[in-house]
Amino acid sequence: MLGKTFKVKFRVQWVDTDSAQIMHFSNYFRYFEYAETELFNQFNMDYAHFKKVFKIDFPRIEAHCRYLSPCRFNDIIEVEIDIIELGNKHIKYGFKIWNKTTESLSAEGYVVVVAADLKSKKAVEIPEPIKSKLREFFNLN
Amino acid sequence: MLGKTFKVKFRVQWVDTDSAQIMHFSNYFRYFEYAETELFNQFNMDYAHFKKVFKIDFPRIEAHCRYLSPCRFNDIIEVEIDIIELGNKHIKYGFKIWNKTTESLSAEGYVVVVAADLKSKKAVEIPEPIKSKLREFFNLN
Amino acid sequence: MLGKTFKVKFRVQWVDTDSAQIMHFSNYFRYFEYAETELFNQFNMDYAHFKKVFKIDFPRIEAHCRYLSPCRFNDIIEVEIDIIELGNKHIKYGFKIWNKTTESLSAEGYVVVVAADLKSKKAVEIPEPIKSKLREFFNLN
Amino acid sequence: MLGKTFKVKFRVQWVDTDSAQIMHFSNYFRYFEYAETELFNQFNMDYAHFKKVFKIDFPRIEAHCRYLSPCRFNDIIEVEIDIIELGNKHIKYGFKIWNKTTESLSAEGYVVVVAADLKSKKAVEIPEPIKSKLREFFNLN
Repeated sequence: MLGKTFKVKFRVQWVDTDSAQIMHFSNYFRYFEYAETELFNQFNMDYAHFKKVFKIDFPRIEAHCRYLSPCRFNDIIEVEIDIIELGNKHIKYGFKIWNKTTESLSAEGYVVVVAADLKSKKAVEIPEPIKSKLREFFNLN
Repeated sequence: MLGKTFKVKFRVQWVDTDSAQIMHFSNYFRYFEYAETELFNQFNMDYAHFKKVFKIDFPRIEAHCRYLSPCRFNDIIEVEIDIIELGNKHIKYGFKIWNKTTESLSAEGYVVVVAADLKSKKAVEIPEPIKSKLREFFNLN
Repeated sequence: MLGKTFKVKFRVQWVDTDSAQIMHFSNYFRYFEYAETELFNQFNMDYAHFKKVFKIDFPRIEAHCRYLSPCRFNDIIEVEIDIIELGNKHIKYGFKIWNKTTESLSAEGYVVVVAADLKSKKAVEIPEPIKSKLREFFNLN
Repeated sequence: MLGKTFKVKFRVQWVDTDSAQIMHFSNYFRYFEYAETELFNQFNMDYAHFKKVFKIDFPRIEAHCRYLSPCRFNDIIEVEIDIIELGNKHIKYGFKIWNKTTESLSAEGYVVVVAADLKSKKAVEIPEPIKSKLREFFNLN
């Protein structure tokens, strides 16, 4: 059975664009994160939950993006997330940003996050309930 | 003796602009805040100091801006701050944003902040050392 | 017959918040603008349309906001827009930002925009098709 | 003779931080770009110059960053840029972001830009005056 992806749509806002009249390259990472937030909302999990229940958060340790075609103001984009690696302490998310208005792949990249203890700031094991939700949603083994 | 103002220069960044090729209107408030930060840095005071020493922060309760002429990428702007009101619990800052590249007044406005207890979130008296620094710097009575 | 308002919901994103763990005050103006975009999308009108068909855009000439209660990450907010003035050359939008998660009014304010000729940058009459759409939607006389 | 680097300092602003009370990961790319702007300002070159004289701009085609230690509000950061590749049509910039307040390397990464004809949007040769300035400044062969 094939791995699933998580998809969610957004509109490119005026302030997201710059003087080249396209979305600024830094904002692709923000849209990845908006989608990551919605992914966890599906599991009824968010930062407050991670903090309160598991005493962790998920700082980003690496980010990468290749830009293929631009997004402009008012374009509809679809962020598609998959899991490249679900490690003991880290998650490597892959993401694609589709421009639905131009019917093009606008960008693809990845973001690596690590589970970190809120007090010690050290990497810790990803809590099993989180791994379990991700495994189930994405059809991971 | 006339009231003084605090002035500090910044460069308009690419990401500050939008598809109209001018600085986005929301960013003027950010530049006001960058200047406010430098003002307090002059007093060796910042958010960490307010938090640790005085157990307060300064949430914004009102903001206003009139936009007079645009700023473009790479323009040099000067933010000029004065104190319109120094109340017991609030400060009303006036600000002007001068575009030094076009030699025009780009915007003027005000921001009202209130001293708030970090725990109760209630408005409290502005600590005397802060008022004293502001009175001295701005030649207030 | 009472004036109507336009309402649209958004989620407060992680990057919208600051070290006080609340939405940064400048971002309220961005959320107003996201809602303004959706309002005109209802009329099948956007910046590209204004530019191509009417040779105008709508620069902001004034903005104001009073902040009443904070928004936090992942809160759902509803932006409610009404028309305070529909002038020959300007529109004064009122906006309220409701925090649906805390069931509070988070902020209220206004933004004044002016129709400006794209070449001369001078204020011009708002094209009748735009005024007509606004009058109809908001039940204005 | 060793390759040179370009260095410029900035202050981490309040709005750059998020609810984790550290600089948001997307903003590192913005600070890289602020430094890139200052680099070209040293050559009396900017976007307006590229557009007017050379009819090109430099869209980003790839971006990468590894995050090593956080930056907090009011920290002083130094962005250090070097040239990893100076191709016929592309430039691969390396960057390091040093947190001068904590005396730590906060992040390192790279950004790849391509010279693009403003009309056709196709990749074109980087104009010789630009390559020449970069070769000279960075002691490239």
